[in-house]
Amino acid sequence: MFEPSPRVQELKKQIQAFMDEHIYPNEKVFYEQVKQNKWGAPAIQEELKKKAKAQGLWNLFLPESERGAGLSNEEYAHLCELMGRSSIAPEIFNCSAPDTGNMETIERYGNDEQKEQWLKPLLAGEIRSCFSMTEPDVASSDATNIECEIRREGDEYVINGTKWWSSGAMADSCKIAIVMGKTNPDAPKHLQQSMILVPLDTPGVKIVRELLVFGYDHAPHGHAEIEYNNVRVPVSNILLGEGRGFEIAQGRLGPGRIHHCMRAIGQAERALEAMCRRAAERTAFGKPMYRLGSVPESIAKSRCEIDQARLLTLHAARSMDQFGNKVARQQIAMIKAVAPTMLCNVIDRAIQIHGAKGVCQDSFLASAYAKARTLRLADGPDEVHLNSIAKMEMAQYL
Amino acid sequence: MFEPSPRVQELKKQIQAFMDEHIYPNEKVFYEQVKQNKWGAPAIQEELKKKAKAQGLWNLFLPESERGAGLSNEEYAHLCELMGRSSIAPEIFNCSAPDTGNMETIERYGNDEQKEQWLKPLLAGEIRSCFSMTEPDVASSDATNIECEIRREGDEYVINGTKWWSSGAMADSCKIAIVMGKTNPDAPKHLQQSMILVPLDTPGVKIVRELLVFGYDHAPHGHAEIEYNNVRVPVSNILLGEGRGFEIAQGRLGPGRIHHCMRAIGQAERALEAMCRRAAERTAFGKPMYRLGSVPESIAKSRCEIDQARLLTLHAARSMDQFGNKVARQQIAMIKAVAPTMLCNVIDRAIQIHGAKGVCQDSFLASAYAKARTLRLADGPDEVHLNSIAKMEMAQYL
Amino acid sequence: MFEPSPRVQELKKQIQAFMDEHIYPNEKVFYEQVKQNKWGAPAIQEELKKKAKAQGLWNLFLPESERGAGLSNEEYAHLCELMGRSSIAPEIFNCSAPDTGNMETIERYGNDEQKEQWLKPLLAGEIRSCFSMTEPDVASSDATNIECEIRREGDEYVINGTKWWSSGAMADSCKIAIVMGKTNPDAPKHLQQSMILVPLDTPGVKIVRELLVFGYDHAPHGHAEIEYNNVRVPVSNILLGEGRGFEIAQGRLGPGRIHHCMRAIGQAERALEAMCRRAAERTAFGKPMYRLGSVPESIAKSRCEIDQARLLTLHAARSMDQFGNKVARQQIAMIKAVAPTMLCNVIDRAIQIHGAKGVCQDSFLASAYAKARTLRLADGPDEVHLNSIAKMEMAQYL
Amino acid sequence: MFEPSPRVQELKKQIQAFMDEHIYPNEKVFYEQVKQNKWGAPAIQEELKKKAKAQGLWNLFLPESERGAGLSNEEYAHLCELMGRSSIAPEIFNCSAPDTGNMETIERYGNDEQKEQWLKPLLAGEIRSCFSMTEPDVASSDATNIECEIRREGDEYVINGTKWWSSGAMADSCKIAIVMGKTNPDAPKHLQQSMILVPLDTPGVKIVRELLVFGYDHAPHGHAEIEYNNVRVPVSNILLGEGRGFEIAQGRLGPGRIHHCMRAIGQAERALEAMCRRAAERTAFGKPMYRLGSVPESIAKSRCEIDQARLLTLHAARSMDQFGNKVARQQIAMIKAVAPTMLCNVIDRAIQIHGAKGVCQDSFLASAYAKARTLRLADGPDEVHLNSIAKMEMAQYL
Repeated sequence: MFEPSPRVQELKKQIQAFMDEHIYPNEKVFYEQVKQNKWGAPAIQEELKKKAKAQGLWNLFLPESERGAGLSNEEYAHLCELMGRSSIAPEIFNCSAPDTGNMETIERYGNDEQKEQWLKPLLAGEIRSCFSMTEPDVASSDATNIECEIRREGDEYVINGTKWWSSGAMADSCKIAIVMGKTNPDAPKHLQQSMILVPLDTPGVKIVRELLVFGYDHAPHGHAEIEYNNVRVPVSNILLGEGRGFEIAQGRLGPGRIHHCMRAIGQAERALEAMCRRAAERTAFGKPMYRLGSVPESIAKSRCEIDQARLLTLHAARSMDQFGNKVARQQIAMIKAVAPTMLCNVIDRAIQIHGAKGVCQDSFLASAYAKARTLRLADGPDEVHLNSIAKMEMAQYL
Repeated sequence: MFEPSPRVQELKKQIQAFMDEHIYPNEKVFYEQVKQNKWGAPAIQEELKKKAKAQGLWNLFLPESERGAGLSNEEYAHLCELMGRSSIAPEIFNCSAPDTGNMETIERYGNDEQKEQWLKPLLAGEIRSCFSMTEPDVASSDATNIECEIRREGDEYVINGTKWWSSGAMADSCKIAIVMGKTNPDAPKHLQQSMILVPLDTPGVKIVRELLVFGYDHAPHGHAEIEYNNVRVPVSNILLGEGRGFEIAQGRLGPGRIHHCMRAIGQAERALEAMCRRAAERTAFGKPMYRLGSVPESIAKSRCEIDQARLLTLHAARSMDQFGNKVARQQIAMIKAVAPTMLCNVIDRAIQIHGAKGVCQDSFLASAYAKARTLRLADGPDEVHLNSIAKMEMAQYL
Repeated sequence: MFEPSPRVQELKKQIQAFMDEHIYPNEKVFYEQVKQNKWGAPAIQEELKKKAKAQGLWNLFLPESERGAGLSNEEYAHLCELMGRSSIAPEIFNCSAPDTGNMETIERYGNDEQKEQWLKPLLAGEIRSCFSMTEPDVASSDATNIECEIRREGDEYVINGTKWWSSGAMADSCKIAIVMGKTNPDAPKHLQQSMILVPLDTPGVKIVRELLVFGYDHAPHGHAEIEYNNVRVPVSNILLGEGRGFEIAQGRLGPGRIHHCMRAIGQAERALEAMCRRAAERTAFGKPMYRLGSVPESIAKSRCEIDQARLLTLHAARSMDQFGNKVARQQIAMIKAVAPTMLCNVIDRAIQIHGAKGVCQDSFLASAYAKARTLRLADGPDEVHLNSIAKMEMAQYL
Repeated sequence: MFEPSPRVQELKKQIQAFMDEHIYPNEKVFYEQVKQNKWGAPAIQEELKKKAKAQGLWNLFLPESERGAGLSNEEYAHLCELMGRSSIAPEIFNCSAPDTGNMETIERYGNDEQKEQWLKPLLAGEIRSCFSMTEPDVASSDATNIECEIRREGDEYVINGTKWWSSGAMADSCKIAIVMGKTNPDAPKHLQQSMILVPLDTPGVKIVRELLVFGYDHAPHGHAEIEYNNVRVPVSNILLGEGRGFEIAQGRLGPGRIHHCMRAIGQAERALEAMCRRAAERTAFGKPMYRLGSVPESIAKSRCEIDQARLLTLHAARSMDQFGNKVARQQIAMIKAVAPTMLCNVIDRAIQIHGAKGVCQDSFLASAYAKARTLRLADGPDEVHLNSIAKMEMAQYL
């Protein structure tokens, strides 16, 4: 039953209370402020960050590190679901993507200097970061396709390439990028790539434009297309060493997917709640909607799918905690293939039951759908994960 | 095979050529101009309207009227599909929703004065119109729920109510609304409602706000929430007579659905084309995408679904032409239940094959999806149509 | 609307009447007789064959031949749907698979002697035939895999191989097989195979066993596994010539698929009818089933899917008639991918609405499902057809 | 992770070994013997029952009773999955339906005399039992519809009614039925029904016929239609008391569903294994099937669905153990709605990958599908469970 430990139960209660008191009532305020200053940090966010920090609801994500809260992946997963219910919540708890992934990457693969310079302010919530991996010109789901060049010249690396979907990079507070690119095109396929830290104020870094998701700009974070034109950084900015980009990418994946999926489950719970509330309050053809036609089946299927996806994700988290990310690989691929699709389906049903209200700004559903749909592509489309799962499944028979 | 007549084949060729020469190359221009003046008519549109009119590609939609082009529903359907491929095209041919439906309504149910005053400039493309039916506070898919009050006082009707999803009403050129509301709450259920013409500059008409669809504002037309506060119009503005709102709604439905569905099929064809082109040009995991995993099945299923939906829609159009809208009722309900869902599925596959490009502004897919998804709710959610189909199917067994 | 011609309308009426008078009321009788003599021809069948012949409802399938009724593929399709409603009907009209395909094959590709010896008694309904293509040991959907050896020795061909799913071969009346095998393993891939006529009483032909479909034996026709051990036939038994097996297979495909699909549509109509009747007569939870929960949506979706599949199939038939099987290839692949799956879905819904009655011998549904499910594999699994469709769709972009 | 306890792990190993050594290799033997004596107990079964008993792999299902093995629902669930992999296994471990449900019913609701007479030989595997609830003439999924009459006359109850789907009742060894019927048609709806023990050799009990499932007779157990004509049993045969039939039905449901679902998961695992093995050994279009088209996605989706259904079922079992069947009601409804459908989907994919082999007697798939499909109806169709889930979900919002 994945009953959370007493400590986690306590944290759940605290987060739940914080959400009820501070997050939900301020979602509108937040987006009103965003309208005033698209890429700035909304005042309400900064205010609530202080509150969350003061309550110890801060950096709960970082496992196996003294800098984190000492929670396992499974333990944090429960909390992550709660935070995921509101799109403004994760950052307020300093637990938002891609920063958690970036912080974990620097924590695990960075050296002391890198940690001092970048991890510290990130953990303090003073700056934001982005992850520059995907490229517009190649099918980046096959990461060996990535073409950005990281060429060593003396004590510097010179970076050239165009990245897009660098999420968060539009924000004024975003100061640092982790960039993936080829240091050695002649090495074996999985040793060609490296990851490197690039401060966004380095000459040659150019934010070309914002990318919209469906019609949304996702301010105040946004998704940026970035050109890196002869960007020069000291060699010490490399993470872990040349040719180890894939190794880092692998290590980074597991927790990030747990987070994405648990947030998806939180979103799905909220959509199901909205569906039920709407079905309770509307009447059509002489009946309350919750007894009308296939509406009950929509509710029931959503409940079944959500609970299954949650159990699968918690199960994957526990495997990671017990056996490590490598052993849990198939399970991690499974949740990535399952949870975003489940979320799309649940929201889609909720939209249908909301009628036109479900596609406009009067509910969170359309906006949540746009994100959910994107999540089926982010970090590899479903098909890539399904193929990994099949490969691992077949291994025992070949 | 629904082989179009020679005249329609000729028109198809002309429209095809017009699309290739004038529409597709100007889609970007159009939206650039919209950015400059959100609710104004883009210059390129006005320019192309003149061209279309000059070529006789104008008002092709109006069947059984000397004001139209003399095309049957089936004949126009072929053309409508073509126009539907581009979201900017229908208005350029003066064939856009909801104006076609409104024009047809006035043509069929309006008196001479009403035709002179409103149909004439609408057919000339000088003004736009909206249709104010749906209300935010009730499940409007059950039209008996509609609450807007149309109260007679002497020689005037006084209108009070809030409507939303009055599409097109944000446009500066939108001058007239057809409003549905209750003239007689005590009459039998289907005789309570009436439709009335309300010029948008009448005192008491207030455009409250624009409604976004998945983040999109759908400028230059937009969707408006409109308050009608003690709006007074002469009694001569009523259409057909008090209590005949349902009768008009029924008559209006058939052609409108054919149009929506054929445009949906045009969109789906364009999405399939995009899917194929993308699959042809991208390589991943050592293979062109069109030979990768389930991509071929996505293409094939889309082709099968599109062709079936087209045949069903043409078949419904022919039934309407041959036997009238009443006899074709089940078929009309069927296409409304089938085509928008088909379109959602086809676009969704196209998005998946485009990866992140599919959800942002670099393809038309996300924007088309938002519209397609809305179409599953507009004019009644799928479930309402499915229930009508079932009811008619069951009739022979009860 | 694919309005049938007056002649076809007249034939439809006749067949409809024949079905009502002779077929439906005798389905039970038929299967009772089968129980007495599994592989013999049931007396009722022979009796009704005479009646059908006398009424001219005989061999309606054969297009472009003076031996047939002079109906086009499209014309026959309408009739085929009607016959398909009952599993015992097609043979009574001498229009059952695989005999129609075999007769068409001999008519098109056989020489006069072959026609005299085999086509004549087949057209007279005196004997039955089977088609021996699929092999248990290879993925036969890729026909190049087929391994049966047809080796020339002097004036004879010597055949060695094991075939299964030779449908109809269990029947006592089955006298002739068309066997596909390799005459020249060294030829280019598509010229290796040939088709040859093998009388089933030739020494070396061994009916190994019957194959069950789900638990059904499909008596009185059955599906046989046949071993061909050094079976010797005169060289004159070859069809069309050595190496032309693929050519014949291609030519044979089109009409056979139209027939299969239209019969599938007939079955689906009957399942939908059963669904509606059941929904009309049962009450649960205080409501007639046709107003209960998702039952109306099941009915409506079935109607939508059936009508679409029918239109697609008629459209394919018309294309074949107008442009030939080659041009219509994509459409033929489409109906094969669409109709059997549609049928499975419709029957599955009907089963669900029938409850336990739907899976046992008290309705025709379970038995029909077993056949429908098999049809998704017969003549190539869905996936093979989907891939063909995709290939043809992509051709224009490569 | 639902890690089983050491004791259960040990039992799993034993059962696994028993399956490998005794069950799988004897499946063919078993069904050969059944052919000789349809409704008798196959010798191999009786032999293996002794072996299982000797190893203590016997009656593992009965929780909270000194007669059982002392395993919780969750603990037994792990074992049940293993047994479920083979259709002949459950009875060999004396853990087959409906006997487990019947034994649990008598254990919980029977008096000492009833236990002595019927529970003892059932637990010893000496006799079999059936459950007579469903009736052909009413929608029995709404149990208030059940019409069988149980009328008291002096010291006897007189039973009149027709039941069908009394599974197991065709077997010679089946000696006792639990019959549900109305003792008091005038009582409040949920107090009208009672359950009563009826020895099958009582005068008036007539096995009318066997019911086939798809084409299968399910020998040696079968499904019977039974007429109860003026069947007289002593009043002491009533279970728990008059009017308590619903109460017993409720209590009986939970464990039975866990068992059904875990066996379904075992079947699904075996189908997935078959799918993978087939994909590993076949080649088509120049590729091993496991790398062909959508085959990998079929494998991956199956893995995802199986794991989710298992977690959901174990979770439901744990809830039952911790909080009782009443609290776990929604979860119990969820697994019944999820697992059988999941199993149908997984087997269907496996069939598709097996081609024609998948629908005939050469694999277990078609037979397993028939059972899985029936399981979507047994004990209430999916729709009934979905509606219960929705009702419980909505409760918090009404």
